[in-house]
Amino acid sequence: MKTSGIITLLTDFGLSDPYVAMMKGVILTINPDARLVDISHQIRVGAIFQAGSLIHETFSYFPRGTVHVAVVDPGVGSERRCIGLETEGHLFVGPDNGIFWPVIEDHKETRIVHLTTESYFLPHITRTFHGREVFAPVAAHLSMGIDLQMMGPMIEDPIELHVPMPKKEGETYYGQVIRVDNFGNLITNIRRPELEIFLESAQPVTKIGNLTIKKLAHIYADVEEGEPLALINSSDSLEIAVNLGRADRYIGVDSEEIIGTVVKVNRSE
Amino acid sequence: MKTSGIITLLTDFGLSDPYVAMMKGVILTINPDARLVDISHQIRVGAIFQAGSLIHETFSYFPRGTVHVAVVDPGVGSERRCIGLETEGHLFVGPDNGIFWPVIEDHKETRIVHLTTESYFLPHITRTFHGREVFAPVAAHLSMGIDLQMMGPMIEDPIELHVPMPKKEGETYYGQVIRVDNFGNLITNIRRPELEIFLESAQPVTKIGNLTIKKLAHIYADVEEGEPLALINSSDSLEIAVNLGRADRYIGVDSEEIIGTVVKVNRSE
Amino acid sequence: MKTSGIITLLTDFGLSDPYVAMMKGVILTINPDARLVDISHQIRVGAIFQAGSLIHETFSYFPRGTVHVAVVDPGVGSERRCIGLETEGHLFVGPDNGIFWPVIEDHKETRIVHLTTESYFLPHITRTFHGREVFAPVAAHLSMGIDLQMMGPMIEDPIELHVPMPKKEGETYYGQVIRVDNFGNLITNIRRPELEIFLESAQPVTKIGNLTIKKLAHIYADVEEGEPLALINSSDSLEIAVNLGRADRYIGVDSEEIIGTVVKVNRSE
Repeated sequence: MKTSGIITLLTDFGLSDPYVAMMKGVILTINPDARLVDISHQIRVGAIFQAGSLIHETFSYFPRGTVHVAVVDPGVGSERRCIGLETEGHLFVGPDNGIFWPVIEDHKETRIVHLTTESYFLPHITRTFHGREVFAPVAAHLSMGIDLQMMGPMIEDPIELHVPMPKKEGETYYGQVIRVDNFGNLITNIRRPELEIFLESAQPVTKIGNLTIKKLAHIYADVEEGEPLALINSSDSLEIAVNLGRADRYIGVDSEEIIGTVVKVNRSE
Repeated sequence: MKTSGIITLLTDFGLSDPYVAMMKGVILTINPDARLVDISHQIRVGAIFQAGSLIHETFSYFPRGTVHVAVVDPGVGSERRCIGLETEGHLFVGPDNGIFWPVIEDHKETRIVHLTTESYFLPHITRTFHGREVFAPVAAHLSMGIDLQMMGPMIEDPIELHVPMPKKEGETYYGQVIRVDNFGNLITNIRRPELEIFLESAQPVTKIGNLTIKKLAHIYADVEEGEPLALINSSDSLEIAVNLGRADRYIGVDSEEIIGTVVKVNRSE
Repeated sequence: MKTSGIITLLTDFGLSDPYVAMMKGVILTINPDARLVDISHQIRVGAIFQAGSLIHETFSYFPRGTVHVAVVDPGVGSERRCIGLETEGHLFVGPDNGIFWPVIEDHKETRIVHLTTESYFLPHITRTFHGREVFAPVAAHLSMGIDLQMMGPMIEDPIELHVPMPKKEGETYYGQVIRVDNFGNLITNIRRPELEIFLESAQPVTKIGNLTIKKLAHIYADVEEGEPLALINSSDSLEIAVNLGRADRYIGVDSEEIIGTVVKVNRSE
């Protein structure tokens, strides 16, 4: 595969410790021409679903031939496998703990390799930092054009992740809040295509807690300052927001608690 | 214009969400050779003046031919225009909401273009993420040497920003705190040239709240540890600080509240 | 020396202010081909030991010929010197305040230069931002292959840093917590080689506060979820952790207070 020379990095390491810098140093020592782009190092510690959603949402915006490293890895050093993936011209490297499940589920043709060829690792492997010793050097080698297939045997049983799915019950479509963004917007797992099928051209009435939003807005400024709205956002998900305000505060619970809150959609009369 | 290939990014998106990564991916897909530098993604949500000050203070340190993208954009999708600017050999891209007013006001010859040529945008435009679909691709094209003038008609009525200005009243020069930095230093809007004209070679006596500082220091270590001081800082602004301490805590109010606090300067007797 | 073209940056500036961006702009104006890697800008304000540990732990993962800029500089503008260092094929630039002492102590052959040749500085030097006006331009010139020896006279009396050292007293090895990482792991100053000499093949019994850990784990998952453990971590230091939890919370004091807490190791019977 033609590589872009770009390696993206996604971890729950934060930026106060030496861990991210060590990974970058390892990559640049192996491939001095690699170009590093941070996706985020502020994933909540151990939050595999949050990391998996982020890599799934962002990867396709990068050029084909990009290598995406994702390390949220509470099971490091245990029996969990190290894996590499290839799909849609993109490469992925990280632990086999479900972090890539959103990508795999959405791209059935994904090839998955159990990373076992130690010549692509650092010579000395500790059992607590595979990010530095396995994933970074493997990513560096992939970014230089080494074929993923050289790095170990194909597998077909990656660890799956429980992803909360919306469902229809009677006349109601049930979803939930899966992320609160930097603006306090509530991102749900309700996606535009399924919602449109459910709505059959009717306007949606969206309910969360005691709040009922009677129609769909197009932009935040469609309602008055401080008023709540629902819209299909730039990632094609149903989102609950407040114009020039924060929906998380409007709803009245803090960011951590609000994740998982049920969102109901009905067809307007 | 000869481009430097560098694109700087300034947003209020934070680094936990996919938004910044999506913008970077879009840029690198269009211009794989672009070199990205983050100015900050920690602007307070919707704080146009904070973002505008930061871009104004930093841009000229970069090489000519650099493209500066600034996205603090609460009005996204409304009637507000998307604009590009060119001044002093630097290019700027972002919303027409006043974010570039500090640059425009300081550089009267700035050319401003209403970005309307859709061939430089992403093919699919949502109404809630122009950062990804307009500003990132336009910046990528500018960094490849496309002329800003190709991207739309010139305009001469950019949105202005209310910038708090210092003023002389009687024998007192009045300014205010416009930023509290990472060290707790209070940065004011009082600038060295105007202050020197006011002082007529006298030493300044600086007052904020109940605190009076009788002269100007040159460095933080000019006073004892824990003592307050006033100095002209590295950006030529009057700054109130505490040696090896935090002026915001010394003054006794939190960072948010202290912005806007009046600072008075008199000539010493 | 052959340069890698890479410049790493470590400061206590945070990412909300213009300071880091200004340094990056200065570097790229002098050496447009420089490749910038952030180590961290989240060092606690004025925390020279934290910065010094981080640069010491990370530098050798980068390619030889890399320039490492470290600016935690509460004494800026005072008599403290600006210095450059060269060791193991790596270059370092920053204030002479002890920040490079962990590197110097560990590499006795380090050459140290007092940076006095002003032609490598910015033309206009303020007394409060040497990061921008001295360290950034010097680093840029070093990354272009200028010899450190051109930049000033050698010195042999760098400022030393008090580094807490572990010690043996009777049958007990005493160390202390020197860092709490993003995962709540407690990193101690007890290093594997000295610990192994002390243990003489016995298993260690590790005590911190009221907690006693009777053996050494290899990975976090060696104990049940929520249980504490001690292990030699990926940097060869004794670390106290909680599997899928936070040792700092388990111990029951907050991150700031726990630094300096005594850790005792005895040989198991």
